Amino acid sequence: MTSELEDKSLRYRRAQSVTKAEEITAKENKARSLQFDKPLHKPRDSLFSWSSQFTNFTGLVNWGFLMLSIGGLRLFLENILKYGIRVNPLEWIIVLTGYNDGNKHQYPSIILLIFSVVPAVTSLLIEKAIAVDIISEKIGIGCQITNILFVITLPVVVLYYKGPEFSFVGISTVCMIYLIIFLKLWSYTQTNHWCRSGMKGKQAKNKLRRQSLSAPNWNKLIHAEHEQSFDEDKNDAIAAARLVKYPDNLNLKDLFYFLLAPTLCYELNFPRTTRIRKRFLVKRLLEVIFGVHLVLALFQQWMIPSVTNSVDPFTDMDPIKITERLLKLSVPNHLIWLFFFYLCFHSFLNLMGELLHFADRKFYADWWNANNISVFWSTWNLPVHMWAVRHVYIPITQMGYSKVAASTVVFFISAFFHEYLVSVPLQMFRIWAFLGMMVQPPLAVISRWAEIRLGARWGNIMVWASLILGQPLAIMMYYHDYAIAHFKPIQE
Amino acid sequence: MTSELEDKSLRYRRAQSVTKAEEITAKENKARSLQFDKPLHKPRDSLFSWSSQFTNFTGLVNWGFLMLSIGGLRLFLENILKYGIRVNPLEWIIVLTGYNDGNKHQYPSIILLIFSVVPAVTSLLIEKAIAVDIISEKIGIGCQITNILFVITLPVVVLYYKGPEFSFVGISTVCMIYLIIFLKLWSYTQTNHWCRSGMKGKQAKNKLRRQSLSAPNWNKLIHAEHEQSFDEDKNDAIAAARLVKYPDNLNLKDLFYFLLAPTLCYELNFPRTTRIRKRFLVKRLLEVIFGVHLVLALFQQWMIPSVTNSVDPFTDMDPIKITERLLKLSVPNHLIWLFFFYLCFHSFLNLMGELLHFADRKFYADWWNANNISVFWSTWNLPVHMWAVRHVYIPITQMGYSKVAASTVVFFISAFFHEYLVSVPLQMFRIWAFLGMMVQPPLAVISRWAEIRLGARWGNIMVWASLILGQPLAIMMYYHDYAIAHFKPIQE
Repeated sequence: MTSELEDKSLRYRRAQSVTKAEEITAKENKARSLQFDKPLHKPRDSLFSWSSQFTNFTGLVNWGFLMLSIGGLRLFLENILKYGIRVNPLEWIIVLTGYNDGNKHQYPSIILLIFSVVPAVTSLLIEKAIAVDIISEKIGIGCQITNILFVITLPVVVLYYKGPEFSFVGISTVCMIYLIIFLKLWSYTQTNHWCRSGMKGKQAKNKLRRQSLSAPNWNKLIHAEHEQSFDEDKNDAIAAARLVKYPDNLNLKDLFYFLLAPTLCYELNFPRTTRIRKRFLVKRLLEVIFGVHLVLALFQQWMIPSVTNSVDPFTDMDPIKITERLLKLSVPNHLIWLFFFYLCFHSFLNLMGELLHFADRKFYADWWNANNISVFWSTWNLPVHMWAVRHVYIPITQMGYSKVAASTVVFFISAFFHEYLVSVPLQMFRIWAFLGMMVQPPLAVISRWAEIRLGARWGNIMVWASLILGQPLAIMMYYHDYAIAHFKPIQE
Repeated sequence: MTSELEDKSLRYRRAQSVTKAEEITAKENKARSLQFDKPLHKPRDSLFSWSSQFTNFTGLVNWGFLMLSIGGLRLFLENILKYGIRVNPLEWIIVLTGYNDGNKHQYPSIILLIFSVVPAVTSLLIEKAIAVDIISEKIGIGCQITNILFVITLPVVVLYYKGPEFSFVGISTVCMIYLIIFLKLWSYTQTNHWCRSGMKGKQAKNKLRRQSLSAPNWNKLIHAEHEQSFDEDKNDAIAAARLVKYPDNLNLKDLFYFLLAPTLCYELNFPRTTRIRKRFLVKRLLEVIFGVHLVLALFQQWMIPSVTNSVDPFTDMDPIKITERLLKLSVPNHLIWLFFFYLCFHSFLNLMGELLHFADRKFYADWWNANNISVFWSTWNLPVHMWAVRHVYIPITQMGYSKVAASTVVFFISAFFHEYLVSVPLQMFRIWAFLGMMVQPPLAVISRWAEIRLGARWGNIMVWASLILGQPLAIMMYYHDYAIAHFKPIQE
């Protein structure tokens, strides 16, 4: 206690002496400035000293982006010097159309793409049959499940028997389109089912309300639109009356609109725009055309040499070389992914939306600001995210299961489809893509921890790091196995 | 006029129809949400569309720094794989001390460094002689000018006769130290001259005031400090009385304090700190020790191979290869420069300042935020900047010349000393460094234009670009000429 008091008095005296010292210093400075030696030194701290409390380092952001540009430009020049110009648009035409591709022609891919209309129309016919009570609800749902399972297995089966006739780009396109149709038909079936259950539920529970909402009443209100002044309620009623109602939606035009629309979630009444903005349309179209060429050029010039060079270090299992290759590959891979993201999710989907008067253009949220992996996965691909929430997550939780169980199911479905999109075209059933998805939940926990403990910035950095480094790792794994399997004699 | 009105009414009608459309949309959305198909689409814009007015891209800053780190790590690994570990601390000892350096031993450098005391003491003796009227002011100034010209020419002359006995590091150190002594003695002489002129001017003009400031009065006031209560004026007077006044400053202790102090501008009364902060001192000391090793390691491992590899492209004059080499060299060069800057201007000068109780630690301002080249040059090296302003710029403008003339003179002196520090140790009188300084004024004009026209960010980017790319260009020029001159037989 005594020592504490002493300590306090000592500190007080010190503080006083400091103040006195400062006062004397101020006086001295005043006196110094009256001398003839033109003094210019003042007691000051260096900016990097904590005591200076200086924090303006905004110039360093410009420095960072400049260093990045310089690094990128150098990599570009190094690439040109090392490999020459490898971009060959003729090859793209061959790859994209399959023309002149030796014994691998694209006909099976094109036939499969055209055939994808069949399961879609089948789905509509089954819905129609349920709606007009030709088949029962239970049998109808059984047919629909068989139909969508058929959609997802067809590419696998065809590839098994006719594999050598497909090109890699051809079968990749087929897998992607069939997966999208699978998701869309799932949504179509389930939404129509909801409409039927909703209407039945209403009929059973609320006879009075059903009466007031029945078709004749609506017709009367529509007539009212042309007759007299509107009040608020009537306005509402008219708006509701304009909407398509089940089962009027079960027609080919509605189905094909949904299949082409930039969404995976079916609705009876999509929000619509009133006009097509021509400047917007032309911009998106030009972005798609130039973007595809840019991505193909980057792929041919930068990605393929990097991946090819990465096989040997992986076979040798030299950790430093593997890391160096991984880091080298991560730059072109990440840039191509960024271009690809913009191309698909902004240019292409907006183009489709504008053409189809589809008003909901939120195809992505601000995933670049995501502070943990979970936020990233729920913001970067909104069509799939919205589909998973509406058609898997919410139904499972409403069935009484926990949120964790619902999340796990969503996760496994997502992991399965990632593997589907990679393994089927490569005809190699490895589990790298599946494993890549499976490490996401632990990563999400770690990044959430980083966000809370180290601050939002570190969470965001973890998200970017997993994105920049995770993809090339998976690509190298696959390419390594692919090269071992296909080029073994050439390599030795 | 009519068309304008029409245009207006058209716009008004359009705006009205948009509002009406929005109103209907809102009603429709409300009606849609009452349907059974669980709709989730809303009319929304994509975030990248201008119409979304979304501007939060903070995550991209983290992305930039992460990409930079990944690029840096890859360069590090690539370097290790390509060249192995080249860091050899034994070599540093040889280079720094000259021990075991074959026929090149460091004795002449060390003798020259010790000899630098002689011109400093000579300068003090001349000042003393002027102060006690042994020699006239005019002759004294003549002697001082001869003395400082001797300081700056001595290394050149010694090197001319004894060149082969010097190591590169030895002669570089000698040149740097002699240049610093040259600048310090210039300041010492000029400041003492100001004191004499000031006092003479006062004696002539204001006899009354001189009386009240004469030494006996000051002594009385000092006694007063111990006798009675102080009032404001007396406090001021005491502070002034504590100051050293000309010619009491002309002694060896004062001279050596100035020679060691981290400043180039002489003053009779430097601001002083009251104590040495031990933690601060230890931190700066450790920074200096580790920093020197880091810079040497980077130099040996990264810089020397890059520079060596750059000779051939320069000889071949292949523009793509030259650019690639330049960009490759710019990264290690810039990082070494940044470390060197911190090491010299923060760690070392603060260490000296702390040891000498020197209170003015503003050795640099926030040059990293500089929005044009002129601001950069007046903020990155404050000791030299303050010297140039106090001892060249202001005297020239006070002599009646324009500011442009004064700036030009400062510039030429600066360019000359840059060339001096490079050409003398390399024993090659090229003009690359001089030219490098000479392009600064046009660059300053361009960056000022960029700042005003394109915004502060672009000015700052120009400053960084000139810093990152300008230095390696000059280094490659010199190394190319040096290699041509010295290694011709080995190269062929």
